Amino acid sequence: MLDIIARDSNDVHADLGLIKATMTLIEEHQLDTFYEAMGPTIQMSGGSVANSIAGVAALGGTCGYIGKVADDEFGERFTHDLRSMGVDLDVAIASSDEGATGRCHVFITDDAQRTMATYLGASNQLRVSDISERLIARSEITYVEGYLYDLAPAKEAIQRVVDFAHVHDSMVALSLSDMFCVDRHRRDFLSLVTNDVDVLLANEAEILSLFQVTRLEQAFSALAELGVLAVVTRGPLGADVATVSGVVSVPASEVEHVVDQNGAGDMFASGFLYSLALGADPVEAAELGSLCAGEVIKHLGARPESDLEELAIEAGLL
Amino acid sequence: MLDIIARDSNDVHADLGLIKATMTLIEEHQLDTFYEAMGPTIQMSGGSVANSIAGVAALGGTCGYIGKVADDEFGERFTHDLRSMGVDLDVAIASSDEGATGRCHVFITDDAQRTMATYLGASNQLRVSDISERLIARSEITYVEGYLYDLAPAKEAIQRVVDFAHVHDSMVALSLSDMFCVDRHRRDFLSLVTNDVDVLLANEAEILSLFQVTRLEQAFSALAELGVLAVVTRGPLGADVATVSGVVSVPASEVEHVVDQNGAGDMFASGFLYSLALGADPVEAAELGSLCAGEVIKHLGARPESDLEELAIEAGLL
Repeated sequence: MLDIIARDSNDVHADLGLIKATMTLIEEHQLDTFYEAMGPTIQMSGGSVANSIAGVAALGGTCGYIGKVADDEFGERFTHDLRSMGVDLDVAIASSDEGATGRCHVFITDDAQRTMATYLGASNQLRVSDISERLIARSEITYVEGYLYDLAPAKEAIQRVVDFAHVHDSMVALSLSDMFCVDRHRRDFLSLVTNDVDVLLANEAEILSLFQVTRLEQAFSALAELGVLAVVTRGPLGADVATVSGVVSVPASEVEHVVDQNGAGDMFASGFLYSLALGADPVEAAELGSLCAGEVIKHLGARPESDLEELAIEAGLL
Repeated sequence: MLDIIARDSNDVHADLGLIKATMTLIEEHQLDTFYEAMGPTIQMSGGSVANSIAGVAALGGTCGYIGKVADDEFGERFTHDLRSMGVDLDVAIASSDEGATGRCHVFITDDAQRTMATYLGASNQLRVSDISERLIARSEITYVEGYLYDLAPAKEAIQRVVDFAHVHDSMVALSLSDMFCVDRHRRDFLSLVTNDVDVLLANEAEILSLFQVTRLEQAFSALAELGVLAVVTRGPLGADVATVSGVVSVPASEVEHVVDQNGAGDMFASGFLYSLALGADPVEAAELGSLCAGEVIKHLGARPESDLEELAIEAGLL
């Protein structure tokens, strides 16, 4: 996924029928309409888990990525950007009739919220046969994004990932990705969380949607019954970590001027999961998550611009 | 010109033979080598005068742009980005055998300096016949970048621009662009400044190179003899405005954390020239220049991310 980012002071996203702060899927024939409606753009690699992996690499972690791009310029840039950070890649190349590399149009409103219109493109062609055991076998944690359920062969592919992870004693972490994505695939999500997930990452809207409840306490009760380690990110309110011994709140990083919330959840996942992989307890892990999220919201774009490892060492978190 | 921007904490630019904080021209066959050596990139439209024009548009000014791109994705993005800001474009499209759209590899070192490797591509094919009278006839100020001298048909094209400007009583402003560019074309620059330029914009290294002197006072003496209104930007030291009544220093905007100096000179030009066009005196104009430069150095990339018009109104400068 490549991000095409523009400021949206005039709420053009609403004229395009997008719902603020969420992700809407669009088709290839809509690409021109969406691009033409945008102001000047900044383009950079994106994709939720790919962003998180870039964050782990920026923290100095060893990590890999499985995905699919087309044989085009956007696909080359996507792989270049991760590879140049030292990420081990199993990125499949779609055939020429399977669409262009996926791209996400990101509208940043003056309140720093991001609204997204995503063309899945080649990533929609990720097949079970593209899921290799190699990287999963080497990983402490295998991280899956909920957005995968929007892809055509999702269930099979996710099952393959989870099976490999179980075989190799790799923890399975899942991001719920987006409240409407949860709404589209609630039954699948619930089944996965109940049977296969060790660590669940979500924001408030997503976790409420998953359990179809209206208050966080109800969601935490449901999580406690399932016995899943979960962290719920709450923007400026920080993150709530649900452990076996109860819910602990970790404050957000203090940020004077929030420019763009895009990537906040992805970078939180970087710090949280990397720290867990190093053996930290979940509350410590959430502190590193908050630090990483705090960096990415200070600038446009969902990937880190600063040396996260240095920031984490300075803060005593690595 | 499209900017391909990457952080360069390991001084890769030096291994590539680039001289820090300057612009080096590269050939098409070198593109892969330079791109492969870069870390994860952010891509956005660039080009010195194009950046300045984007800045004028962001200030609410009416402006146009003359240039040349190829019929490719980068060329489309370049025109989209200016057009979506309301800039009136006379952008010629190069034929398919005239190279790809120009691009600039920008290496940002940890001290926020930018080092550039530029492939001119289609912009090198800007011909005299591509210079239309239409936009110049409507302009208070016609702004020419010194980099034009690196293009093949430069002298003729610049002469055409200057002739049109004189016919239509448009002031001619010139940016010296780069100290090595000045070094490559000193005789041409001196002739242009002596005969045709009303407003000269330069940084310290460029103005010293133009007159082959070692101290700023010597450069200001030479400028006084020529009777040219000049402004010399000096980074954190602000800008020195050389008027008929002497040199006045205008302080730089206070910026707590400089991220990327790329675009500082271009954005200074936006504020300075737009303010002059509105009838401000040169010292007031330099204050708006400083404000715009102060915005762009707070983030990656050479184009403004904030609403410059709003910032200028808040500061009482518009």
